[in-house]
Amino acid sequence: MDALKERILRDGRVLPGHILKVDSFLNHQMDIAFLDEIGREFFRIFGNLPITKIVTVEASGIGIAALTARYFGVPVVFAKKSPRKNLDPELFRTRVFSYTHGEPYEMLISRKYLSSEDHILILDDFLANGEAVEGLLRIAKEAGALVEGVGIVIEKGFQEGGKRLRSEGVNLHSLAIVDSMTDTSLTFRGGE
Amino acid sequence: MDALKERILRDGRVLPGHILKVDSFLNHQMDIAFLDEIGREFFRIFGNLPITKIVTVEASGIGIAALTARYFGVPVVFAKKSPRKNLDPELFRTRVFSYTHGEPYEMLISRKYLSSEDHILILDDFLANGEAVEGLLRIAKEAGALVEGVGIVIEKGFQEGGKRLRSEGVNLHSLAIVDSMTDTSLTFRGGE
Repeated sequence: MDALKERILRDGRVLPGHILKVDSFLNHQMDIAFLDEIGREFFRIFGNLPITKIVTVEASGIGIAALTARYFGVPVVFAKKSPRKNLDPELFRTRVFSYTHGEPYEMLISRKYLSSEDHILILDDFLANGEAVEGLLRIAKEAGALVEGVGIVIEKGFQEGGKRLRSEGVNLHSLAIVDSMTDTSLTFRGGE
Repeated sequence: MDALKERILRDGRVLPGHILKVDSFLNHQMDIAFLDEIGREFFRIFGNLPITKIVTVEASGIGIAALTARYFGVPVVFAKKSPRKNLDPELFRTRVFSYTHGEPYEMLISRKYLSSEDHILILDDFLANGEAVEGLLRIAKEAGALVEGVGIVIEKGFQEGGKRLRSEGVNLHSLAIVDSMTDTSLTFRGGE
């Protein structure tokens, strides 16, 4: 998605340690018109599949999922990241390691909102080691839901997540794939 | 908003301890078409004001804010709830007590995304004691931003937050106000 690559080059900030900050438009401040374009692009890619539900994880995935779901006409379910006092006791749960925060967390989805009837599209803002997506795949499997696809806004192509998911046969599409990063710059992989 | 009250009566679950669970359509599974109606209603109420930005707090506020912001044509900034390793060091921060989780948390917004140029609309899913909204008001004040209004989906009218905010002169509108709750039922206040 060329508009995304241009936006990353214009507004993203590259920091030492392979950190790409896009919080001016994607995951802290959200440029809603641009997220809506992202949603339209995900619909272009996955819109022919019989999606019944979009699944993501709090917090950065929610805005993207909400605006994409308008195009599909389906609900969103977002996984929560720690046990919550007033969340339903009947939960799917799996443990996920966050490389961003350097510690594991529990990913939770109520059993009410995912079932073997569901054909789901998993969406997230970033894919690096793939821990969050793998967590959602485990929950989907436990629920008996069929994962029709995984849509990622920005994939760090030099980390292992994307390669591993594709080798497992996951129908993964990333709107921008960062091929390499130095302490101050980045390059994209050519592609969709 | 009658459609909201009907939806709460149909799909909400009342639990002992004044807990109202609406996670089948509002804050775990999100009925996107319905959230879009909520966004249209917030635009009907606040659309005449010179809003430049919608501000909310992760995670439940994000979907509502994203769909509402489409009507206003403005960006969303969502406050994060704990120090994050790769969030900008230049932060507005304030401490907020969560009655839901029984402990305090830090509410954080990057100084880049809120300024004295901004006229903001604060949105959230629930208002009870008003701690989260008060936290956002403190951050807005520190940023010099003008708070044009506060929009809430469901207010627990029998708790103190709404009364206190209105007495402080805040332009607060709640789409449904729960007047009383027993262990198994609830009643609404008549209103907008």
